[in-house]
Amino acid sequence: MKIAHLGEKGSFSELAVRGYFGKSATTVGCADFSQVFDEVSNKRASAAVVPIENSMAGSIYENYDHLLNYNLQIIGEIYLNISHFLMALPATNITSLTHIYSHPQVLSQCKKFLKKHDTWECIPTKSTIDAITHIKKEKLHSAAAIASLPSSKYYNLAVLKSHVEDNSYNTTRFLILSHRARKKEDSLAPVKTSIAFSTPNEPGFLYKALSVFALRDINLLKIESRPMMSGKFEYIFYLDISGHYTEKAQQNALTHLQEITTMYRLLGSYPVGKTIATDLPH
Amino acid sequence: MKIAHLGEKGSFSELAVRGYFGKSATTVGCADFSQVFDEVSNKRASAAVVPIENSMAGSIYENYDHLLNYNLQIIGEIYLNISHFLMALPATNITSLTHIYSHPQVLSQCKKFLKKHDTWECIPTKSTIDAITHIKKEKLHSAAAIASLPSSKYYNLAVLKSHVEDNSYNTTRFLILSHRARKKEDSLAPVKTSIAFSTPNEPGFLYKALSVFALRDINLLKIESRPMMSGKFEYIFYLDISGHYTEKAQQNALTHLQEITTMYRLLGSYPVGKTIATDLPH
Repeated sequence: MKIAHLGEKGSFSELAVRGYFGKSATTVGCADFSQVFDEVSNKRASAAVVPIENSMAGSIYENYDHLLNYNLQIIGEIYLNISHFLMALPATNITSLTHIYSHPQVLSQCKKFLKKHDTWECIPTKSTIDAITHIKKEKLHSAAAIASLPSSKYYNLAVLKSHVEDNSYNTTRFLILSHRARKKEDSLAPVKTSIAFSTPNEPGFLYKALSVFALRDINLLKIESRPMMSGKFEYIFYLDISGHYTEKAQQNALTHLQEITTMYRLLGSYPVGKTIATDLPH
Repeated sequence: MKIAHLGEKGSFSELAVRGYFGKSATTVGCADFSQVFDEVSNKRASAAVVPIENSMAGSIYENYDHLLNYNLQIIGEIYLNISHFLMALPATNITSLTHIYSHPQVLSQCKKFLKKHDTWECIPTKSTIDAITHIKKEKLHSAAAIASLPSSKYYNLAVLKSHVEDNSYNTTRFLILSHRARKKEDSLAPVKTSIAFSTPNEPGFLYKALSVFALRDINLLKIESRPMMSGKFEYIFYLDISGHYTEKAQQNALTHLQEITTMYRLLGSYPVGKTIATDLPH
């Protein structure tokens, strides 16, 4: 089973693939998100795993766009609790460090720790894996990278300090995408359904749209609005609701919804995902 | 009048300050967003200008957090249409370029242009201004930076290519913050009000919350949900509604809303902002 994802071995996306599909899945690392979607669309991969939102950095709009532009279905989700580790070539001492390499977003998530060592110079890199491979290639003994624990194992770097992140509630949600919708299973595990729609930009239209769920006691799990890229002042709404789209109440609500929306897309029904830690040996 | 913002001369935040307050305002460049909020909170600056969302990258959650943690009021907004320019030391020829420096987010917004020149190596920097100052300091004649047009003027670099961004609808919304709420003015210009609240995590509660506006024909301009950082499965909602909070219908709706929310904050009422271009000489 081939699973497409962004980035290289040891990246968080690859961890999400392993967390969802297990160790035996064959991972296909891609250079950008459109390539990840292309791999599944062109049936070169059977599924894709893409990040969709992070509890600190917010929604990843590029992937929301791809969800609308490609005709794939969400078949699952998984949450990764993001932990960062300071790592260096074996025999490097933390007291002799002068330079810290990592992705700018990772550096900004470790501000408190880095502030305590204000003589260190922080160097941004394209990815955390780039930070690691630069240190290895140049044999830098006064430099360290900030990256995930599994990537330290994969590239044989020694961890100098664990959990250098500021906030321990840093969670990234990944979606699992496939060609085909996921059928309703005979399981008691809670299921959710993701949809996208637009309404006319007039008072009360969103309220009307949400009434189709409230009237049927269907819970709203997430709601987000976003201006359409057309430049017109119109919004796309992304909603997660409880239940499978084939259940009677959900079916009625979604039919009802389409009467009052200008655009509507069913993105998929899938079991509510688990959260996995990234601070354990891979 | 001192206005706090993130970054240096020529940054987009500084352009937003100039766009809103005019050329005579004294800008106070800060190293991070908490310092920007601190400057106003400690009354060292009379206002702050912070980015809150981008049409491509989404919400800037760090500033949403600061809005809840600091006791400031939104008194205005301004939209910047983001354009990127390729610039280098005078006498550098585009055909002799080997390295391109910029912030990773900017590089990712110029993918199509960079793909056409696949021999160029892209080097991430902490900010677009860092890219410029590096090229100037090291006197690099085979390198270019991608940054804003006003920064090319400020640092005396020559523009090699205009509008290298992939998408022309790349807009960043900035909020103007102050100690004191903005009073209702005798003007016909449309006004909006921003609020934040939480509801119990039960079916229909968000619908009930929105009913207070729908019942009074108050338009919802923006809605966003976000998991609370506490780790519990509870959401904060950010809403922009039409009108000033002192108008009768808005006052009633907001009083009504507080009966059914577990947390409520009025973030401010202010005139709907204008969009300004960033591709004109400063």
